[in-house]
Amino acid sequence: MTKQAAIIGGGVIGGGWAARFLLSGWDVRVFDPDPEAKRKIGEVLANARRSLPGLFETALPEEGSLSFHDTLEEAVSGAIWVQESVPERLDLKQKVYTSLMEHCAQSAVIGSSTSGFKPSELQEGTARPEQIVVAHPFNPVYLLPLAELVTTEKNTPDVIAKAKEILSAIGMHPLHVKKEIDAHIADRFLEAVWREALWLVKDGIATTEEIDDAIRYGFGIRWAQMGLFETYRVAGGEAGMKHFMAQFGPALQWPWTKLMDVPEFTDELVDLIAGQSDAQSGHHSIRELERIRDNNLVAMMRALKTQDWGAGALLNAQDKHLGANAPEIDETRPIVTVRRAIPLDWTDYNGHMNEARYLQAFCDATDRLMEIIGCDAEYISTGGSYFTAETHIRHLDEVHAGARIEVRTQVLLGEGKKMQLWHEMYEGERLLATGEHMLIHVDLETRRPSIPGPSIKANLTRIATAHANLSKPAGIGASVGVRA
Amino acid sequence: MTKQAAIIGGGVIGGGWAARFLLSGWDVRVFDPDPEAKRKIGEVLANARRSLPGLFETALPEEGSLSFHDTLEEAVSGAIWVQESVPERLDLKQKVYTSLMEHCAQSAVIGSSTSGFKPSELQEGTARPEQIVVAHPFNPVYLLPLAELVTTEKNTPDVIAKAKEILSAIGMHPLHVKKEIDAHIADRFLEAVWREALWLVKDGIATTEEIDDAIRYGFGIRWAQMGLFETYRVAGGEAGMKHFMAQFGPALQWPWTKLMDVPEFTDELVDLIAGQSDAQSGHHSIRELERIRDNNLVAMMRALKTQDWGAGALLNAQDKHLGANAPEIDETRPIVTVRRAIPLDWTDYNGHMNEARYLQAFCDATDRLMEIIGCDAEYISTGGSYFTAETHIRHLDEVHAGARIEVRTQVLLGEGKKMQLWHEMYEGERLLATGEHMLIHVDLETRRPSIPGPSIKANLTRIATAHANLSKPAGIGASVGVRA
Repeated sequence: MTKQAAIIGGGVIGGGWAARFLLSGWDVRVFDPDPEAKRKIGEVLANARRSLPGLFETALPEEGSLSFHDTLEEAVSGAIWVQESVPERLDLKQKVYTSLMEHCAQSAVIGSSTSGFKPSELQEGTARPEQIVVAHPFNPVYLLPLAELVTTEKNTPDVIAKAKEILSAIGMHPLHVKKEIDAHIADRFLEAVWREALWLVKDGIATTEEIDDAIRYGFGIRWAQMGLFETYRVAGGEAGMKHFMAQFGPALQWPWTKLMDVPEFTDELVDLIAGQSDAQSGHHSIRELERIRDNNLVAMMRALKTQDWGAGALLNAQDKHLGANAPEIDETRPIVTVRRAIPLDWTDYNGHMNEARYLQAFCDATDRLMEIIGCDAEYISTGGSYFTAETHIRHLDEVHAGARIEVRTQVLLGEGKKMQLWHEMYEGERLLATGEHMLIHVDLETRRPSIPGPSIKANLTRIATAHANLSKPAGIGASVGVRA
Repeated sequence: MTKQAAIIGGGVIGGGWAARFLLSGWDVRVFDPDPEAKRKIGEVLANARRSLPGLFETALPEEGSLSFHDTLEEAVSGAIWVQESVPERLDLKQKVYTSLMEHCAQSAVIGSSTSGFKPSELQEGTARPEQIVVAHPFNPVYLLPLAELVTTEKNTPDVIAKAKEILSAIGMHPLHVKKEIDAHIADRFLEAVWREALWLVKDGIATTEEIDDAIRYGFGIRWAQMGLFETYRVAGGEAGMKHFMAQFGPALQWPWTKLMDVPEFTDELVDLIAGQSDAQSGHHSIRELERIRDNNLVAMMRALKTQDWGAGALLNAQDKHLGANAPEIDETRPIVTVRRAIPLDWTDYNGHMNEARYLQAFCDATDRLMEIIGCDAEYISTGGSYFTAETHIRHLDEVHAGARIEVRTQVLLGEGKKMQLWHEMYEGERLLATGEHMLIHVDLETRRPSIPGPSIKANLTRIATAHANLSKPAGIGASVGVRA
């Protein structure tokens, strides 16, 4: 039978929970007196549907069914997870728990999205405090995996185990906080930074945009993969975490921030942290961690590049700057359409460039050739482009991350709607692969083949005519397993 | 003529600067009395060479030359940028400036990597204070683009402009901090979080690993792309930044952290921040920002997936969990080798799935088929694998992000070293593309063709024999532009 979750209180957070459960195949029953609840949850769900399923290399189960209910009783009926995301008022939350406990299964887990209350406060005065845990998510709930699971000694091992199991099943990482504290863990950091940021803006040191840039071009992207302590462990070098702390610990005494109550920097504290850091990361040498960190940074920055955002937008700007020095094109020769290094994230488990990245490089070569004949972003925005209809790749030799490659492109055919290209990929003069591609010019409105604009046609014809004088490359017209 | 930079003080930071300049085509002259300087810079440079060039889609210029010098005088000779990264002692730094000003060009920019001193402190008592700026980078300097450029009224507009130009030219983002303050901007946040983290560890609330997880599975990955204020702007929803502040501002009064001196939450402060946020992000609606954020998160999390790290490792674990429910394989039919949704980062400027991602999906299908015949991670670790030698793709129809696709695979040939596969990609029953692939089994030691292990051979033969009874797919054996 399909599992059921009850969502008490919609909005951005409740909607995010609803989306996670639904897309994981659960049926979701919502109770929210807000007349806008359906619309609000619908909007979050639309965002989740476009972004979450594609995170996985495997299809998610069929989506569960979503229903809205007028009473708490109906909503929690049959639910094995009840997620409460009502406004942050303790009396309101306790009232909700009292009501829903009258109707929900005694075995159901009641998770609260609260950031402001400790679980012991939520449990106080309720009939079955053992059912209530804090399950504090992060926006967007449907994408970010962190859920702070905060429990008290009133929660049974069974409830805690079930909570972890269900949160994991919907793709979250339950971070079990065993000792409750105001604001749990992550929000304490957010608060610390928020306060400092308010000071900086108020005192006219930096604008909101400058502060955001200071975060996302620097430590933000570092933290996205290793967090704080592992990052500092790497910074400490082979001498390790103790060395790092010896070097930077004293800075705690400096009059830097206006936030002044700092823990005393005792040997016990240093040992505690160094020991935990060893347990966390000691199975990697610092050199390994450096390389892991760099692999992660490269992969993430290149991911942001595809979105032309943040650190990735800076890289794209630098590409333009670097490309400005490209040599003049000699149209009587194959045209150099790609000249680049193989990035760290283009290799696979065989230790060499993954086959799909050969096509990515050929695709970049095609894009560059299109640009050369005038089919650039401006032309494409007017409604015409080339689509690839057919591709034949021969992998002739391996190549590894860091190698500098070049793609040389010969126009085999440029007639009417058709453009046939021949790409050769080299490292130095070592031929790595060839790509033969048939492209068709299309009308982006109708998505049907169409004749390219006159200047593109003229440019393509000129290059195709010049290239007709070149010798025919070996391997042209071949099919898989058969030489041409 | 090649531009010259002088690096005063090596180590991780000085070495990172050296790497950035060198890989951007500058000649770099190092002065560092540390007898280990060559080795240390060499190690940073090795890391930079493996990671930085591949960040770009364009080749970097030829690397400059690196030289080590015994005197400051020699090192700064001819340099237009001098980067000082000596230990954080003000008297030492000022002594270095006094010496190097005797020899360096008056037009050179002297950048300090200091995090602990304000530029006015560095400039004090030097002969030409106008030359000295703070250029504070973030580790790893060769990858992270942020450089806090902090200046005083003693710096001329010319020096400031030159500093920005040179930092940009080596691929950095000069964040110009116009009003100096202890620790500049980013390190103030790092300090605030560091202090809070020390409390949490000391008080036994969380371990270093739990704190790192709380960061990297939640707000860390959010900050990597939008920073603090833009993230909160989105959280505020259509009601905007003022609404967000009205909702969360009061939390500043709560007894959360032990860091208590907070700015007063006046209307002026709210207006100041809301106004700056409008200037920063007001050209996007909240709905647009949500989608941009989600695109970024998906792209970064999927990037981390390729590295099997952080949030990406969680996704891989979830994939295994989802894959466990795969239906039984019927070997008399084409085998379903991929069943997935098209992720947001697989589309391109034409608004559909990029051609290289078709091959990525086919490559995943090949990996799955390999796994099915027993060529899995364990087998590969014993020294055998299949490499793709040749690929023919026909793009028959477009497909968009979010679509659920399936790849069905037919074994055309499984003999000796050869494995020939036929993949068909469907959305529902709509055929999107076909892929014909010739793979060769190789010995991973010699990188030469070899016969697969006996169980793989047997499994492959069994499936190939069963599939020989299937009808031959249309399009088989075709070459580009020619039907078979």
